[in-house]
Amino acid sequence: MELWLEELQLGNMRFGLRADTVLHREVSRFQEILVVDTYAFGRVMMLDGTFQVTEKDEFVYHEMLAHFPLMSHESPKDVLVIGGGDGGTIREVVKHPEVERAVLCEIDPRVTAVAREYLPSVAAGLSDPRVEVLHEDGIKLVQDHEGAFDVILIDSTDPVGPAVGLYSPEFYAACKRALRPGGIVCAQSESPFVNGDVVRRVAQSVKANFSACQLYLAPLPTYPSGFWSFTAGADHELPQDVDKARAERLATRYYTAEMHKAAFALPPFAKALVE
Amino acid sequence: MELWLEELQLGNMRFGLRADTVLHREVSRFQEILVVDTYAFGRVMMLDGTFQVTEKDEFVYHEMLAHFPLMSHESPKDVLVIGGGDGGTIREVVKHPEVERAVLCEIDPRVTAVAREYLPSVAAGLSDPRVEVLHEDGIKLVQDHEGAFDVILIDSTDPVGPAVGLYSPEFYAACKRALRPGGIVCAQSESPFVNGDVVRRVAQSVKANFSACQLYLAPLPTYPSGFWSFTAGADHELPQDVDKARAERLATRYYTAEMHKAAFALPPFAKALVE
Repeated sequence: MELWLEELQLGNMRFGLRADTVLHREVSRFQEILVVDTYAFGRVMMLDGTFQVTEKDEFVYHEMLAHFPLMSHESPKDVLVIGGGDGGTIREVVKHPEVERAVLCEIDPRVTAVAREYLPSVAAGLSDPRVEVLHEDGIKLVQDHEGAFDVILIDSTDPVGPAVGLYSPEFYAACKRALRPGGIVCAQSESPFVNGDVVRRVAQSVKANFSACQLYLAPLPTYPSGFWSFTAGADHELPQDVDKARAERLATRYYTAEMHKAAFALPPFAKALVE
Repeated sequence: MELWLEELQLGNMRFGLRADTVLHREVSRFQEILVVDTYAFGRVMMLDGTFQVTEKDEFVYHEMLAHFPLMSHESPKDVLVIGGGDGGTIREVVKHPEVERAVLCEIDPRVTAVAREYLPSVAAGLSDPRVEVLHEDGIKLVQDHEGAFDVILIDSTDPVGPAVGLYSPEFYAACKRALRPGGIVCAQSESPFVNGDVVRRVAQSVKANFSACQLYLAPLPTYPSGFWSFTAGADHELPQDVDKARAERLATRYYTAEMHKAAFALPPFAKALVE
C-alpha cells in the first residue's frame, strides 16, 4: 500500500511525494500543520495542504532569501524576518557575523514549536543568542518599529488569508519606515511561471516605495512549477559584485558570490513581469 | 468530474496536470504517444507516461539546448539533432542564419508526425528547407558521419530503453569523430536534484572525450524536480561572452547573451556532481 502526500496547486496542477511516516498533525489557531517523512524529499512540513519546507530543497530557498539581501548590505546589524516560522531563513541570517540581532516574527507559535521538534536542522538557528522570536502580526510589528532594521525579509505564505496584507504597497511603505538609511527589504514573490500576477504585484509594491527593485530567481522543486522568485528593494543601487571572501564564509550549497551576480541576468519572460 | 494527466517520477514523486481534452493516443513501434490539452500548461505530449513537451514551458528547454552551444560556435553550418522528434530544438536551430543544414535524427516517425499535426508551434521548424528529417538510430548515424557536423545536440529521452546508449562514453567518442574541428556536442542531462547519477554519467562521458565540459541549468516545470541540466563538450574553452547582437536576433523568451554568461555560475551542490 502506498501513502501519498499531495498538494493541489492553483487548481490545475498537483504535486505528490510518496510518504513513509506521518509524524505530526494538528490544527493550530491559524492553520493545519502536518509533518511527514517522504522518500524523495526527506522530512516535509505542510501548512494547510501546501508544501512549506522539505529537508532536501529548503537550502535553496533559505539561502537565496537571506544571503542575496544581506550580502547586498555592508553591515547588516539588525535583521527582521516576517513569517518563516520554521527557522530556515534565520539559520542563514545568523551565519553573518555582522548580525547583532535577528528578530523572527511568526504569527503562529505552533509552526515554530513543531519545527524545533521535527525539523531540527532547519530550526537550528532559532537557538542562536542573537535571535529573538516573537509571535505577533508582522504588519503591526513593522508599523511599531521605525528606523530599527537594516534588512527586512518577508518569508510569507502565499497571498491568501492572513498573508494578503504582506503583499500590499502600504506594507512596503511601513517596511521602508522600519528600515534605517541604506536598508534593504526582500520578499519571496512566488513563481514566474504560474504566479505572474503575484510577481507583478510585489514588484509594484516595492517600486511604489523604493528606487531600486530587483527580481531574482531560483529553483524550488516542491513549490508550484519548481521555480521561484524573490524581490529585493532599496533606495540605492543593489550591488552585482559582492565580497567573495565574505560569501565563502557562509558555507552554502546554492548561494555564492558568482550566483549573486548571475542572478541579475533574467530571462526575458520573467523580466517582462516586472517592467 | 476531473480528468488528470499524471506522471510517476522516479517512483517516489508524481506530477499531474488537470486535463481538458485527449486529442490523440497511439502505440507506435517504439512507445505510447499521448496528446492532451491541459489547463495549466496548454497542449502536452507524453511518451510512455512521461511529459515530453508542453506548450507553456517548452521554450526554456529548446532555447537552452540549442542556443547555448550554437552561440558558442562562430559559424555553425551543419547541425545534427538526435532525438527531439517534436521539432522544438530544430525550430531554435534554424533561427541561426549561419546554419546551412540541420539534420533531425528521430528514431520514431510517429513522434514527428503527431507533433506536426497537434503541436504545430513546436514542429514549425521542421518545414524549413534546410532541415532534413531522418528516422534512424542516432547512434548508427553518428558512427557513419565522420567530420560532418559543427554542432551535435542530444535531445534524448531518459536513460531507459533505446536511449541508454546515448549516455555512454563510446557514443560521445563517436560524436567527437562526427564533429569537425572546433565542434561542440551538447546534451540534455536530467535533473541535478533527482538524477544526480545521470548528470554525473553524462559529464564523465563528455570528459572522457573532450577537454572542455560545461554543465548548465534551467527551469523546466513539467520535468522531474522542475529544474534541468544540459552538458556541453568541446576541445576548446567554451566562451562565456557571446555576440550580443547575434543573440538578440534569435527572438527568444529565455536565452539571452546575459543568460548565457550567467549559466557559467553553478550552485555548489550541482557543481559537486561534475567535479
